[in-house]
Amino acid sequence: MCMGNGRLSLPAGVRDMLPEEAARVRQLENVLVHLFASWGYQEVIPPTFEYADTYTRKGSSQSPGYLFRFIDQEGEVVALRPEFTTPIARLVSTRLNRASLPLRLFYLGNVFRYQSNVVGGQREFRQAGLELIGATGARADAEVVLLAAEALLAAGLRDFHVLLGHVQITEALLAASFAPAGIPPAREALMGKDYAGLNRMAREYGLQPETWQVRDLHGGREVLDRLRTVLPEQGNGPARELAEVWEALSTCGLENLLSLDLTLVRDLDYYTGMVFEIYAPGLGFPVGGGGRYDHLLEQFGLEAPATGFAIGIERLLAVMPSSPQPPAPPDYLVGGKTTGDVLAQARELRRQGYQVELLAAGISREQAREAARVKGAKELCYLD
Amino acid sequence: MCMGNGRLSLPAGVRDMLPEEAARVRQLENVLVHLFASWGYQEVIPPTFEYADTYTRKGSSQSPGYLFRFIDQEGEVVALRPEFTTPIARLVSTRLNRASLPLRLFYLGNVFRYQSNVVGGQREFRQAGLELIGATGARADAEVVLLAAEALLAAGLRDFHVLLGHVQITEALLAASFAPAGIPPAREALMGKDYAGLNRMAREYGLQPETWQVRDLHGGREVLDRLRTVLPEQGNGPARELAEVWEALSTCGLENLLSLDLTLVRDLDYYTGMVFEIYAPGLGFPVGGGGRYDHLLEQFGLEAPATGFAIGIERLLAVMPSSPQPPAPPDYLVGGKTTGDVLAQARELRRQGYQVELLAAGISREQAREAARVKGAKELCYLD
Repeated sequence: MCMGNGRLSLPAGVRDMLPEEAARVRQLENVLVHLFASWGYQEVIPPTFEYADTYTRKGSSQSPGYLFRFIDQEGEVVALRPEFTTPIARLVSTRLNRASLPLRLFYLGNVFRYQSNVVGGQREFRQAGLELIGATGARADAEVVLLAAEALLAAGLRDFHVLLGHVQITEALLAASFAPAGIPPAREALMGKDYAGLNRMAREYGLQPETWQVRDLHGGREVLDRLRTVLPEQGNGPARELAEVWEALSTCGLENLLSLDLTLVRDLDYYTGMVFEIYAPGLGFPVGGGGRYDHLLEQFGLEAPATGFAIGIERLLAVMPSSPQPPAPPDYLVGGKTTGDVLAQARELRRQGYQVELLAAGISREQAREAARVKGAKELCYLD
Repeated sequence: MCMGNGRLSLPAGVRDMLPEEAARVRQLENVLVHLFASWGYQEVIPPTFEYADTYTRKGSSQSPGYLFRFIDQEGEVVALRPEFTTPIARLVSTRLNRASLPLRLFYLGNVFRYQSNVVGGQREFRQAGLELIGATGARADAEVVLLAAEALLAAGLRDFHVLLGHVQITEALLAASFAPAGIPPAREALMGKDYAGLNRMAREYGLQPETWQVRDLHGGREVLDRLRTVLPEQGNGPARELAEVWEALSTCGLENLLSLDLTLVRDLDYYTGMVFEIYAPGLGFPVGGGGRYDHLLEQFGLEAPATGFAIGIERLLAVMPSSPQPPAPPDYLVGGKTTGDVLAQARELRRQGYQVELLAAGISREQAREAARVKGAKELCYLD
């Protein structure tokens, strides 16, 4: 094998998908598109990059270090999209602001992040998700959680569970438990589910143990009753919303998959209400998640509540029941002397619905029989 | 409408696809995937960016100014892919070099180029294409030209034509007609189909008018006979290959769509044999094109001939018979008092194959009737 002068390796964090994996991706994405459309969601496709400050809005606590940024020929700082919710909020606010609400939109595509908390340090990965824009309350939140669960069920996943939380409850618990200086590091620890670190902070910041028992804030429906005893004022709005989402999902038969986690903190900062994450055994990070973000669109000029979710395609493929099927053999191999006759015959068979593969020129009838055997083709068509 | 602090505009050269266009894109891409698969092609997905020098190989005459380049966190210069053929050549050479040839691979995705020769100055656009790797000769070339034409036919396009050329013939004509210093500008003029500029150069560089009559090098099958009189040595190999491709496509009923253009120069420099472009009325640039590239893979360590094509998805959509259909109305609108009942009912209807959309909480039966009328929903299901 002679070596040319091309680079053979790939930069950190990106990879090729070969035919078998690409086929699984396409099959899965087709299932999701069909599901989302059947609930009235329509696809939108924002650009792969846009101005970096779209993602680093004033008031965002997000560190921009995870962004793939570069300067374009106009001298503008642009960034590859790290997620779809922000560009879709911009798109709706600027292009669909006269549409009647609610709007149901879905997306499918790749996102880009410098990050270390994923297996293999992957920096480009695929997401599918949806946004329900212009709908308030538990019904809309329950719709998106149900759809996220339906997406995993449609993908053939049976063994997963859904953690439900609420940003306002978690923030109230943090405020009641920590001195102001302790809140940001405690929130950070919760985001990483670093409960040991949180316990250290509890001692350091003089935690109120009666309000802040992580273990007590994670479990079934009873967690909400416990919340009422420690933070009575949260017993109304937020807790009632969570209870309604819980009831609705239970009615749909998902109760066994649900648990509450009042310390759930998501890795994006625009959430304002219910949040959720979905976990599957054997995967150290969520397959998907989402929540309510009622103030993101107004950053782009449109006041509208919204809720949604995203699923990681590679993560879902990693936990889906695998069916490592080799590609189906062609129905027909077509070969022979005259290129025009061979192509015309292949085209005719393909029109009849067959999968057809051509043999190279110069292959004899004998070699063609052997090729058909090796490939497992159902029929051989050889034109003299 | 209160203005937030988010950027509302997009960088030069990128844009959003709204639901109607996104639906057309998805429908078209599904048609192409089905067609490619039915001819035995399998999908591969290279990363969105890789090392910039993958695209600026030694020996490439390509100016790298069209590349979207940036420096990643490792300090490496990377570039967004400007096309798929080079990354797929790298992928095959490094990951599939033990696969039995020929390999049939297809791709679908976006590419990125700074360029000024397209309407609206678009810099991110979608391509679908395929590569037939490890097959020499006219049969393989005819297969990819036929498949490109079939792709346009499958998309509903009837009015297009296919220009066939050959890099070796064009280069021989340039060498026979121009002094060495005149060849690069003449080639550049041909690439831009700038025949007026070419005529100026002809005077400047002392063109041999008997070999170089652009008009005579563009036409039907007779162009090859004319070639034999001016450049007899090209009458064998390259001209015979072109003739065989022509015959094969004619046998498939494409003769009326074909013409020869022996001055056809493509905008990528890796072509080594037959090249083609497909034009549709009203579009000042090709809908698609491709050709043979027998030495690209060896840049990455695998000696293998190859041929393929790419189609511009936005370009094809621009010339496809448009069917600006509003999205189909939902089969059912489902609303009512209790979120759980509403979701469970909607889920059941969706399982039966209906497209279902939920009404917001708090909508009365009367309002629901009005919503069903406005949306054109076939049925309303309201649960008290």
